[in-house]
Amino acid sequence: MSHNVYTHRVLPQETDFKEQITLSALGSLFLNTAGEDALRNHFGPDDLLKMGCGWVVSRFAMEVSKYPKMYDCLKVETWIEDFGVMFTGRNFRLLDDKDKEIGLACTQWAVIDINTRRPVNLSRFADWQKFATGESNGMEKPRKLQEMDCPVIFSHRVRYSDLDFNRHTNSMKYAEWMVDAVPFEQLESSRIRRFDINYLREARYGQQVDVCLLNSLDLSCFELRDENGKALCRSAIEWVTE
Amino acid sequence: MSHNVYTHRVLPQETDFKEQITLSALGSLFLNTAGEDALRNHFGPDDLLKMGCGWVVSRFAMEVSKYPKMYDCLKVETWIEDFGVMFTGRNFRLLDDKDKEIGLACTQWAVIDINTRRPVNLSRFADWQKFATGESNGMEKPRKLQEMDCPVIFSHRVRYSDLDFNRHTNSMKYAEWMVDAVPFEQLESSRIRRFDINYLREARYGQQVDVCLLNSLDLSCFELRDENGKALCRSAIEWVTE
Repeated sequence: MSHNVYTHRVLPQETDFKEQITLSALGSLFLNTAGEDALRNHFGPDDLLKMGCGWVVSRFAMEVSKYPKMYDCLKVETWIEDFGVMFTGRNFRLLDDKDKEIGLACTQWAVIDINTRRPVNLSRFADWQKFATGESNGMEKPRKLQEMDCPVIFSHRVRYSDLDFNRHTNSMKYAEWMVDAVPFEQLESSRIRRFDINYLREARYGQQVDVCLLNSLDLSCFELRDENGKALCRSAIEWVTE
Repeated sequence: MSHNVYTHRVLPQETDFKEQITLSALGSLFLNTAGEDALRNHFGPDDLLKMGCGWVVSRFAMEVSKYPKMYDCLKVETWIEDFGVMFTGRNFRLLDDKDKEIGLACTQWAVIDINTRRPVNLSRFADWQKFATGESNGMEKPRKLQEMDCPVIFSHRVRYSDLDFNRHTNSMKYAEWMVDAVPFEQLESSRIRRFDINYLREARYGQQVDVCLLNSLDLSCFELRDENGKALCRSAIEWVTE
């Protein structure tokens, strides 16, 4: 019922030209921590797989006040806030090696049937309710992002190195492509204050993905689209000048 | 003078659709271990930077008999074999959590002047000689790979997420693009027994890279080329059927 804490040391390949952790590496850290904590509580990916089910993240948001550097030691505190009918909310706090809070994150998860890829009603897992603490971490919940008219910046064909063990695109690869679409000068002069992402459809091997962006110096709004123009995911980045 | 040992736990984003560590993640593990061991011996990247110099890997080879899986705990043993006039050789052994040897790697490094990007004569660092053990790890040294006539499979424009703290393409990104060029069926049915790579030129932000491949089921020979057709790096992968 309590909060659990996990540690991580930032690896060189997780950092960018500023020697700071990248958005996708930080996002992976939160998602991996969710996986590890679920594993510890006996509802990890492997436990669900035995029931023909799997976790999918539907929304994710994070706010970061200070970006860790290469070899920094981090702590991630995590707990479940609630279990609804379709979704469960998991919260995070990111601490530096002096236990100072440097970031927050909220995730919203669904359970899907791995054959039909359709959501499963969470009432099926009534014994999980005991893990819900009802506690927020104080940040605004992941926002629902609206459909947008935005131009294609580049296209990417899904490759072997984009795939996870489910043979779908790794959740944080979408975020990686989005940041890659931002002008380099903006990446040099600004940092990400808040990031929101909504996952809608999965991108598979060989599929072409259009990375679309409506950009300003304060706010970048992204949409990833498949060959038919259907949205795969949407995200928004709020920037602050460094 | 002795061998040092470093540990690593395989993270989800380091694994592929087979739940096995990827070539690039394994390569990064060896290169990071080199960096950490150099740091410990006071000739790490930061120590060299103070002298206006930097390490560059010129050749790398590895042989792997068993691929670690997600969350496996690994040990990497490393030592310096020799210091020549232009190059130094560092060797590695990869052990699983039961201390069974599952892989070997050899790297060849040069020191460059960070302003001119030209190699520096290693006799300048005479006190490093004491770290040379003269010990091989038993595997064949990284091969010199020849120029080849091979077709372009895909092109990649260097992005923000490809860059390291030097603002150059991360060494293992080249390997990632190469594996991405291999037919998916081959990645499903085979694993990499041996990998050799020769680094020739650095790829910078925005530069277009052609990924070229001459392929058979036993051997893939790669060349990455810049817009002018000049080779950036060459590699060879020996496959075995699983």
